[in-house]
Amino acid sequence: MASLKRIGSQTLDFQSRPSVLSWASVGGKKEKEGPLGKEFDILYEDPMVNCESFEEGESALQCAAIDKALEKVNLHSEDIDIMFGGDLLNQCIASNYAVGSFKIPFLGLYGACSTMAESLLLSAIAIDGGFCKKTIAVTSSHFCSAERQFRFPLNYGGQRTPPEQWTVTGSGAVIVSNEMKGKAYIKRAVPGKIVDLGVTDINNMGAAMAPAAYDTLSVFFKDTNTKPSDYDRILTGDLGSLGSGILRDLMNDDSIDLGERYTDCGCLIYNAKEQDVHAGGSGCGCSASVLCSHILKRVESGELKNVIFMATGALMSPTSIFQGKTIPAVAHLIHITNGRDS
Amino acid sequence: MASLKRIGSQTLDFQSRPSVLSWASVGGKKEKEGPLGKEFDILYEDPMVNCESFEEGESALQCAAIDKALEKVNLHSEDIDIMFGGDLLNQCIASNYAVGSFKIPFLGLYGACSTMAESLLLSAIAIDGGFCKKTIAVTSSHFCSAERQFRFPLNYGGQRTPPEQWTVTGSGAVIVSNEMKGKAYIKRAVPGKIVDLGVTDINNMGAAMAPAAYDTLSVFFKDTNTKPSDYDRILTGDLGSLGSGILRDLMNDDSIDLGERYTDCGCLIYNAKEQDVHAGGSGCGCSASVLCSHILKRVESGELKNVIFMATGALMSPTSIFQGKTIPAVAHLIHITNGRDS
Repeated sequence: MASLKRIGSQTLDFQSRPSVLSWASVGGKKEKEGPLGKEFDILYEDPMVNCESFEEGESALQCAAIDKALEKVNLHSEDIDIMFGGDLLNQCIASNYAVGSFKIPFLGLYGACSTMAESLLLSAIAIDGGFCKKTIAVTSSHFCSAERQFRFPLNYGGQRTPPEQWTVTGSGAVIVSNEMKGKAYIKRAVPGKIVDLGVTDINNMGAAMAPAAYDTLSVFFKDTNTKPSDYDRILTGDLGSLGSGILRDLMNDDSIDLGERYTDCGCLIYNAKEQDVHAGGSGCGCSASVLCSHILKRVESGELKNVIFMATGALMSPTSIFQGKTIPAVAHLIHITNGRDS
Repeated sequence: MASLKRIGSQTLDFQSRPSVLSWASVGGKKEKEGPLGKEFDILYEDPMVNCESFEEGESALQCAAIDKALEKVNLHSEDIDIMFGGDLLNQCIASNYAVGSFKIPFLGLYGACSTMAESLLLSAIAIDGGFCKKTIAVTSSHFCSAERQFRFPLNYGGQRTPPEQWTVTGSGAVIVSNEMKGKAYIKRAVPGKIVDLGVTDINNMGAAMAPAAYDTLSVFFKDTNTKPSDYDRILTGDLGSLGSGILRDLMNDDSIDLGERYTDCGCLIYNAKEQDVHAGGSGCGCSASVLCSHILKRVESGELKNVIFMATGALMSPTSIFQGKTIPAVAHLIHITNGRDS
């Protein structure tokens, strides 16, 4: 029996180095006004995205991201073997209503804000495993649909607490391929374990998710016998300013200094003070749109050679919180390289 | 470049034949009273499963199924590389709160009632692709948590419409392995496309899902150049009596007679008239618990040599239905054989 494509206890090793062939990012008005605004492919000022509801608008964000990612490399939906996607809405309706029109075999995911890393991980497994030539990994979030579902209807005008984050209105789509085109490749990945340290404050999800990020990142460094300085960017999904501070502290306790190379997509996408987003951005669309606007082009250009992209998800629901349960969290990690031999 | 492990346009071909090493089924009171009652591993009369809420009870069903599947082959959670699972509840909380305690890397899925087939398909990809030795595929549903979420609180005493189905209180867990042990193997699979023919009646999900089942089954027969008589059981997940009749009709229109070998898990699990379940059983736990109680043991014994297991999912949410949207559906197919060379 062939040896497993694994390193250490939990790290998957993609020997064929699936390539990141194309990507596209879509954002809304607040994302346009943020520091990364100019790096997005498509920006919609209208939160309804010309649709009749916020939920339909979120589907439209995903459709736009998929269309743009296909268009950039002159591909069509029939060139894609499997689509992996999901979102935050109940029963993942943003994705389910978005992807139907593409007529691509679809495997739906629920990993909360970890979805972009989960969909990339499964894309790499399906391609390196020899089942697909091309996949799409896609996800989205929308401030208005998320507020209505997880907190209060917008019209209620609820006050936001200091540790709270702002759900990104955005989407990211990535085409992963078995072709050795392009310059960005998926080298390794870690599917994370669920970690629940007992946090119950739904307004402080960074604190709930940081221990999961710590667990996955520690496993990855141990499995691969590498250290932070082996990477030129370490990126979490949406821990925000509070959660990313906790992750730094947890790693410091193990004498691992993440240093300047570590940052969080939720801290990059907004200017927290000027844009009044409290602890930063959040949502599936946060890490997805930052990866597809700000990061992948820098891997392609060679400015970044080794990037750890680790998206974290808080896996509670409003029902479980009403029932007094704690918040389970998960973090999936993707190691992206410039060039196949890195 | 190696050729793809694919047949035709959409069918995945698992050359190593991942084995179905162990399985377990868990049900509730109504499932105990049904025709398959004696075939379940574990049955709980109490809908709360000794917990404080229906949702926690549903998590307990999943935990019991996983524990039992591990116990049957003397394995422990640390022997499992990845768990694939999901359920019907908002943000998949039945799974997210169930699997945390097992400390197994977890990839959450949302495929509604197609989840058992989706989790088996991804298990087979991960194992045949060389990334895992063993995975667990798990899902559940619960009548009381589903009614509360998708329809009305039970105390409301809402009337049920004639085409309505009864959500199964149950769970199924399957351990998939790269070992050539046992006698049941996963040979092929089809990841389905989303199909939406415009059905809007949330009480007639069989009708909404039948076109997706038709699409996936037609693709499979075409890709593999096989016909219904090449299989001794063709099983859909939870189309119920109405939906399975529609599937028969759609196949008949293509001059394909599914015959006596075709049945639906939702029709097997209850005695529809005596148990007053209208069009039959439904829910992720329906196909999962029927597979793990009634079917896999018959594949192992050789009574069934070639089984098509096709679970269907209706991908709407209460929100999307309130907004007047139609019901998108998906069907994923697994071909299970007795013996590796079938």
